[in-house]
Amino acid sequence: MTKERPIILVTNDDGIISPGIKVLVEVAAEFGDVIVVAPDSPQSGMGHAITIESMLRVEKVDLFEGIPSYQCSGTPVDCVKIATDKILKRKPDLCLSGINHGSNSSINVIYSGTMSAAMEASISGVKAIGFSLQDFSFDADFTASKHFARIIVQQILENGLPNGCLLNVNIPKAPLEDINGMRICRQAMAQWEESYDERKDPRGGTYYWLTGKFICKDNGEDTDEWALANNYVSIVPVQYDLTNQHGMRFLNKYWDL
Amino acid sequence: MTKERPIILVTNDDGIISPGIKVLVEVAAEFGDVIVVAPDSPQSGMGHAITIESMLRVEKVDLFEGIPSYQCSGTPVDCVKIATDKILKRKPDLCLSGINHGSNSSINVIYSGTMSAAMEASISGVKAIGFSLQDFSFDADFTASKHFARIIVQQILENGLPNGCLLNVNIPKAPLEDINGMRICRQAMAQWEESYDERKDPRGGTYYWLTGKFICKDNGEDTDEWALANNYVSIVPVQYDLTNQHGMRFLNKYWDL
Repeated sequence: MTKERPIILVTNDDGIISPGIKVLVEVAAEFGDVIVVAPDSPQSGMGHAITIESMLRVEKVDLFEGIPSYQCSGTPVDCVKIATDKILKRKPDLCLSGINHGSNSSINVIYSGTMSAAMEASISGVKAIGFSLQDFSFDADFTASKHFARIIVQQILENGLPNGCLLNVNIPKAPLEDINGMRICRQAMAQWEESYDERKDPRGGTYYWLTGKFICKDNGEDTDEWALANNYVSIVPVQYDLTNQHGMRFLNKYWDL
Repeated sequence: MTKERPIILVTNDDGIISPGIKVLVEVAAEFGDVIVVAPDSPQSGMGHAITIESMLRVEKVDLFEGIPSYQCSGTPVDCVKIATDKILKRKPDLCLSGINHGSNSSINVIYSGTMSAAMEASISGVKAIGFSLQDFSFDADFTASKHFARIIVQQILENGLPNGCLLNVNIPKAPLEDINGMRICRQAMAQWEESYDERKDPRGGTYYWLTGKFICKDNGEDTDEWALANNYVSIVPVQYDLTNQHGMRFLNKYWDL
C-alpha cells in the first residue's frame, strides 16, 4: 500500500474502559493508525467543559492490543486538546468519539461529552464523528453499531466533509437485521423537562438529584428522532457556528438599538 | 402599574460573589422581579456541563438587598434547571447570565458557562441573554456594560426574540464615551491553539496545565471580533439547533450510504 494510512484519534465520554470505545478502536484500526486518548473516569453530560482551574494528568495504559493508549484525568474535550498538543504533536486526520452507551440525538448533542470531543476536533479543522448507541447498559450489543460505524468511517475517509461540519451518528437499539438503513437528518427540536429529586442526607440536609423526562414535540419525518423511532441510523451534520441568521434579521427589523 | 412585572432569573459562571453578577442584578431589578441562582464557586469553561453523576446543594444567601438569592453547588446549566424546577417552580420570563469577567465572543461561546446557562434557558423556551465584558480582572469597570445591558434588556422585553434564539453580548473594555455603539454580528470563525504547560509535581510526577493562543483568521467586518476590535458592543443571535444544512446537502450529494 503506497497511500499513507490516516492517523485516527479515538476518544469517548464514558471512560477508557467502557466497551463502546473498544468497538470504535477495532473499526478505526481497519482504516488507519489509531491512538486512544480517553477520560480515566465517566464524563457523561460534561458538554464542552474544559479544565482551566486545575491541572491534568495523562497516563499510558495497555488496554487495546497494539494501539497506543492514554487515559487523561480531564473532560472529553481536554482529551482531544492534549492528544493533539502533547501526545500526537500534530493534528490527527480523523477523530472518532464513542461509541456512547446511550443516545445523543436531538438536544442531547448539547450536553454530550461524546459530541463535544468530536466538535473540539472539528473546531481545530479535523474531520470528526460522534457515535452513540441507544442503549445505556454496560453490556450493550454493539454488533449493528460496528457495522454502520465501519461504513460511515469509510465514507468520511473517501468523500470527506465540508469545513465546519462534524457528524452526530445515533444507532437504534436493535439487531442488525432489523435496522432499515441510514438517514441523513436534521436535529429534532426537543428538550428535557427536568424534575429534581429532593432527598435528605444522614444529617438532615437537603440535596437534589437530576431526573428528567425527554419531550419531543417535533413531528417532522426528517429528524433524528423520527429516524431512530423507525429503526434507521440517524446521521446529523452538526456545526459549531451558532449564529442564528433569522435572529440577525429579526433584530435588524424589530429592535431599536 | 397594571402590567405584570416579568420574573427575571439572573445567573453567571464566575460564581455568585463576582462583581459582574451584581451589575446584572441591578439592571434586572429596574425591569422586573429578580431571583438569583448562581454557582457557589467559579465555573468558567464548564460549557454545557450538567451534574448527573452526583447531587446538588442549594443554599439561600443574603447578598443582594431585597433580591431572593441562592447559591448552587453545580454548573451554570444546573443553576438554570434547578431554579426553574425547585425555586421558582415555574419558568422565568427572562434569563440574564453574566456579566462575565472576560470575553465570550466567537468560538468562546462553545466553552462558556455564561452562554450555556443562557442557552439552557432558551432551550426551555425562556428568552435569554449572556453578557460578557472583555476584561478578566476582578475589579473590572462595569459602567459601560451596565449602560448597554439596560438598553438590551429593555429591547428584549419590548420587542422579543424569535423562538430558538438567544443573544451573546460582548462589551469592549473601554470607557462608555469611547464605545461607538452596538452591532448585530455573526460569530467570527476562530479557534484556540492549545499548548499545555508541562510541569513536575513535588514527587516528580508530570502534570499539564492548559494555556493557549486565540487565533482568528476571519477578516469579515460583520463578525463579533471585528465589532469588539472597533469598540462596538457585539450582539450575536445564537441558536442551539446545530444542524448544518450545507452538510446535509453535501452528504446527500457525495456520500454513498
